[in-house]
Amino acid sequence: MALLFKRGILSQLLLRGRQLTTKLSTKGMPEACLTCANESRYSGSWGYRRIHTSKFLSTTIELTYKRLPELKRGPYAEVTQKDIEYFETILGKGGVITDKDELEGYNIDWYKTCKGCSSVLLRPRTTEEVSKLLSYCNEQSLAVCPQGGNTGLVGGSVPVFDEIIMSTSLMNEVFDLDQMSGVLGCQAGCVLEVLEKYVGERNYMLPVDLGAKGSCQIGGIVSTNAGGLRLVRYGSLHGNVIGVEAVLPNGNIVDCMSHVRKDNTGYDLKQFFIGSEGTLGVVTKVALLCHPTPSAITVAFIACPTFEAVLKTFRSCREKLSEVLSAFEMMDGATMEAIEQNVSLRNPIGLSPFYVLIETVGSEQEHDEEKLASFLETAMENNIVTDGTMSSDPGHVRELWDVRERAAEALLHDGYVYSYDLSLPSKAYYHIVPVMKDRLGSKVKRCAGYGHVGDGNLHLNITTQDYDPEVIKLIEPFVYDWTTKNGGSISAEHGMGIKRCPYLSLAKSPNSIKLMKDLKALIDPKCILNPYKVFPYEVNSFSEF
Amino acid sequence: MALLFKRGILSQLLLRGRQLTTKLSTKGMPEACLTCANESRYSGSWGYRRIHTSKFLSTTIELTYKRLPELKRGPYAEVTQKDIEYFETILGKGGVITDKDELEGYNIDWYKTCKGCSSVLLRPRTTEEVSKLLSYCNEQSLAVCPQGGNTGLVGGSVPVFDEIIMSTSLMNEVFDLDQMSGVLGCQAGCVLEVLEKYVGERNYMLPVDLGAKGSCQIGGIVSTNAGGLRLVRYGSLHGNVIGVEAVLPNGNIVDCMSHVRKDNTGYDLKQFFIGSEGTLGVVTKVALLCHPTPSAITVAFIACPTFEAVLKTFRSCREKLSEVLSAFEMMDGATMEAIEQNVSLRNPIGLSPFYVLIETVGSEQEHDEEKLASFLETAMENNIVTDGTMSSDPGHVRELWDVRERAAEALLHDGYVYSYDLSLPSKAYYHIVPVMKDRLGSKVKRCAGYGHVGDGNLHLNITTQDYDPEVIKLIEPFVYDWTTKNGGSISAEHGMGIKRCPYLSLAKSPNSIKLMKDLKALIDPKCILNPYKVFPYEVNSFSEF
Repeated sequence: MALLFKRGILSQLLLRGRQLTTKLSTKGMPEACLTCANESRYSGSWGYRRIHTSKFLSTTIELTYKRLPELKRGPYAEVTQKDIEYFETILGKGGVITDKDELEGYNIDWYKTCKGCSSVLLRPRTTEEVSKLLSYCNEQSLAVCPQGGNTGLVGGSVPVFDEIIMSTSLMNEVFDLDQMSGVLGCQAGCVLEVLEKYVGERNYMLPVDLGAKGSCQIGGIVSTNAGGLRLVRYGSLHGNVIGVEAVLPNGNIVDCMSHVRKDNTGYDLKQFFIGSEGTLGVVTKVALLCHPTPSAITVAFIACPTFEAVLKTFRSCREKLSEVLSAFEMMDGATMEAIEQNVSLRNPIGLSPFYVLIETVGSEQEHDEEKLASFLETAMENNIVTDGTMSSDPGHVRELWDVRERAAEALLHDGYVYSYDLSLPSKAYYHIVPVMKDRLGSKVKRCAGYGHVGDGNLHLNITTQDYDPEVIKLIEPFVYDWTTKNGGSISAEHGMGIKRCPYLSLAKSPNSIKLMKDLKALIDPKCILNPYKVFPYEVNSFSEF
Repeated sequence: MALLFKRGILSQLLLRGRQLTTKLSTKGMPEACLTCANESRYSGSWGYRRIHTSKFLSTTIELTYKRLPELKRGPYAEVTQKDIEYFETILGKGGVITDKDELEGYNIDWYKTCKGCSSVLLRPRTTEEVSKLLSYCNEQSLAVCPQGGNTGLVGGSVPVFDEIIMSTSLMNEVFDLDQMSGVLGCQAGCVLEVLEKYVGERNYMLPVDLGAKGSCQIGGIVSTNAGGLRLVRYGSLHGNVIGVEAVLPNGNIVDCMSHVRKDNTGYDLKQFFIGSEGTLGVVTKVALLCHPTPSAITVAFIACPTFEAVLKTFRSCREKLSEVLSAFEMMDGATMEAIEQNVSLRNPIGLSPFYVLIETVGSEQEHDEEKLASFLETAMENNIVTDGTMSSDPGHVRELWDVRERAAEALLHDGYVYSYDLSLPSKAYYHIVPVMKDRLGSKVKRCAGYGHVGDGNLHLNITTQDYDPEVIKLIEPFVYDWTTKNGGSISAEHGMGIKRCPYLSLAKSPNSIKLMKDLKALIDPKCILNPYKVFPYEVNSFSEF
C-alpha cells in the first residue's frame, strides 16, 4: 500500500522534499481482445491501439447500418474500378488500399461498436492530393469518411455504409516550432505523442493531452474538438488552435494557417473546422499554441468519502492551487475495480468510493509542493480527503496518471461498453450514475463514472458481456433526456458521430439546427463529407442530387 | 522619482515585504477636447468616454462617405416616418431617438476619425425587441449598424451613411454567476467594468480586461473578439466565451447560451459571432468563463535599454514567472512622452527607450514576489533591465496600470491619430516604428509604439495636429504591405471595420474570402447588417436586391 497522508505531518514531509508515493504495479500489455500487431502504434504510454486484423472482431461486430434499419444509404455513387484507377494516378498503388483484411481496422471503431463496409482506403500525403481526391469524389457523388487515429468514441471516424475512407495517417510532417511564440505547425496526421515529444525536446508542452495520445492524430483532435486532461488549465482548442488548413468538399483549399497569435482579419474560419467532425472539410494542417515546459509537475492521488467531498475538494483546490492546478480528475469505486480487475494496475491507495487525481504544473517545485501540502492538510482536517499519495518523481507521476488514463480501456475489457460523455452542472454531475444503477440493476455488469470534474465533464460507462439491445433501450433516450433536463450537454467532448446524432434536437434549438444545416448545405451541397454524422438521419434529405 | 532597483538587494527587500514603489502623479481629468457630460460613463478608472454633444467635433469631423468617394451607398431604403412609428410601437417613444444633437455621439467613433449621418437610434431592452426590429428592417431593406460602447478603433461601430443605429446600451442585465463553474451570464449591453465589479464581489475575475472598460460593452467585445491586457494569461475570447445568444438579420434568435464549459453537440455556432463585427448577427446575451480572484497581484514597471532587451526580458519572464505571468506590456519612449505631456501622468521610473509593465497574478503573495524578484535580479545582472519599480499595493498597482492604459488617450490628445493594430513575429515586432519614423520624418508629430509583446501585438500610433490626406497616403497601404511581407496580421485585435476592410485580400487567401462572402450571403442575403464593414467595398454587389 501507499504511504498514507498523516494529518499535520504532511507539509513537514513535503518541505523536507520526501516523495509520498509508492511503486505501482504496472504489468505489461493485457492479453485480451485488443490486438495490436503494429508496434509502432504502441508508444510506451498506453495509447489506444488500432484494431487491425482480429478475426474475433470481424465475426462479432454487426454492421452499423444493420443495427440502424431506419437509416438509409444516401444517393451516392458506388466506387468503380475506374474510380480506383483515378485514385491510383493521384496516390500511386500504395496509397489506395482495397484489401479486405487491411481495411477491417479502418472500418471498425475503437470501441468495437460501429462497423462500416468501405471497400477503399485512400492515404494521401499532401494537401494537394486531398484536394484532387475530394474534388473528384464531389464531382462523382462519392461519399467520403475522413479518418485520423480512429480513436473517437461516437463512431464518427468510421464509415456507416460504403463511404471511401480517407486516412490522414501519412500526412505526418512536423513543420516547425516558433521558439518565441510557442506556435507549432504540422500536418494533420501527426500523432499526439509524437508532437508531445517534438515540442518537449524544445522546452514546450502541448495544451492538450488525451489518454489516446499514442494513436490519435492532431487533425482528428481538432475536428472532434477533443477536450482531454488539461482543459481545466489551458482551455479548449477553440482558444489554442492558432491556424488550420482544410480542404472543402469541392477541393478548395482554405488556408487559415496563421502563425501569429492574434489575427482579427475577417471571420475566423478555422473555428468552422474545430469540432465539426469532418463534415465541413478535411483538416490538413494545424498550428497549435504550446506552453513553456513547466519545471515542476506534482501529482496527488487522493480518496474522497462522498461525491459532495469531491466537489468541496475541487472548490478548495481551485482556490488554493489556482494558477498551478492543471488537472482534477475523478474516478468512482466501480471504475477503480475495473482497472484492478481488467488491466492489472494496482490501486495506489486504499479502497474508497471516490478517487481524485490532482496535478499541479509550475515553475518552482518548492512553491507548488507547499501549495499542494497546505491544501491537502486543510482538506484532511475537514475530512473531505481521507487518504492519498503524492509524487513529483516523473516515473511515479506517470504511474499515477496511468491509473486514470487506462480507465476507458479497463472498462472495455468487460465486453461491450455503452459510453456517454456528458457535461453536467455540479449538482447533477455524479447523480446520473446511481440513477442508472437503479434503472439497470443486474442487467449490466458495471455502471461506472469518471471524468474531468474541473470541466463539468462526466464519462458514464455501462458495461455488459455482449451488446444487448434491451439494455440500450433502457439507457437511451433516457440518459439524454435526463441530461438535458438537468441543464447539461449530451456530448461534452466526443462529438455527435453516428451515436449521438439522433438526439441533436435535445441539445440545440430549432434555429440553431437550421443554421447548422444551412451551413452544411452551403459548404457541402452534395453531402459527400462524413454523411450520417452530426445531424439526425433525415438531414440527408437536403442533398441536392 | 521612483525607488530604483539595486542589484543584489532586490530580493532581500521583497522578502521583507517592502513595497518598491512610489506615488504617481494622478491629476484629475484632462480638460481637453474629450467631453463627457454623462458622468455615469466615467467610472473611476479611466475608461473611454463617449463623445456626446461637442459642437467642436461636429464641425471638424468630415463624414466618412465624403472621405471615401469610391464607396457607394448600398441600395437600401431610407427611413420614413412610417418606419419610426413602427419602431415606437416596439420600443416606446423613449427607445427611438431622432434628435440630431443626441445622435451626434452615436454617429462618431471614439477616435474622431469616422462619422456617419444616421437619423435614427434604436435602444431595445430585450432579445425579442431586437428580433422584431431586425425582422422588420430586413423586410423593408433598411440597413442597421449595431453599436455597443462605441469604443472600437476601426470605425466598425458607427454608420458609414444613414444606417439605423441599434444600440445595446439598455440591454444591461446581469443574470447570474455560477459559483462552481465560474460562468457568468448577462445581456450584451453590460459595461465591462460593471461586470468586473459584479464578479469581483463574488470572488471571481473576468478573463478579459481593456483600457476602454469604463464604456465598452460585452456584446461589442465579443463581436470584435477584443484581445486586451490579459490575453497572454487567459487566452482569446474564442476559448473564454461559453455561450452567445444572437439575432440574425431575418430576426431568428440563435440561442447558444450554454452554461456548461464543454459542449460538443453540433457546430459551435457561437464562434460565428465572435469577431464578425456585427455583420452576421446582433449579439444579445453572453456567457463568459471567469476565474477565481487571485489573492495576490504584483506589478513591476521596468526600463529596458533596447527592444532586443525587451524580447529577452519576455523570454526570461515566461520561463521564470510561467504560471503567474498575467501581462507583459511594452511602451516606447515616444508613448511615455505623450503620456507625460498630454495626460499629466508622471513616468514612474527614469527616462528610457523602452518600458515594460509586468503583472503577476497568483494565490500566494510571497511565492509570486519571490519569483518576480528572482527574475528581476537575473535580468538586471544581465543588463536587459536597467531600472524599475514594483508593488503589490492595490492603489499603486492601479496607478502603474494607468500609465499603460492611458497611452491611447494620451496620443489622441496630439490631434489626429493614425492607429494600426498589428500582429508581428518577434523579429519584426518593433522594427516597423523606426521604419515609419524614417518614412514620415517631420510630416508627423509623433510616431509611437506600444502593445502586448506577449501576444505579438503592436499598436502603432502616428499623430498629426489635424487629419492630413498626404500623410495617410504615405502610411497606407505601405504599413499593410510591410506587415504582410513580414508574416504579420494587419488587424490583431481591433477587427477590420471600415478602415481596414479594403485590405482584406492582403490578409486572407481568395478561397478564404470566398467562404467568408458565402457565409455572409447565406446569413444576411440583403446585407443589411453593418454594411461596408469587414469586406472590401465591392462586396455590396452580392446583395440580392
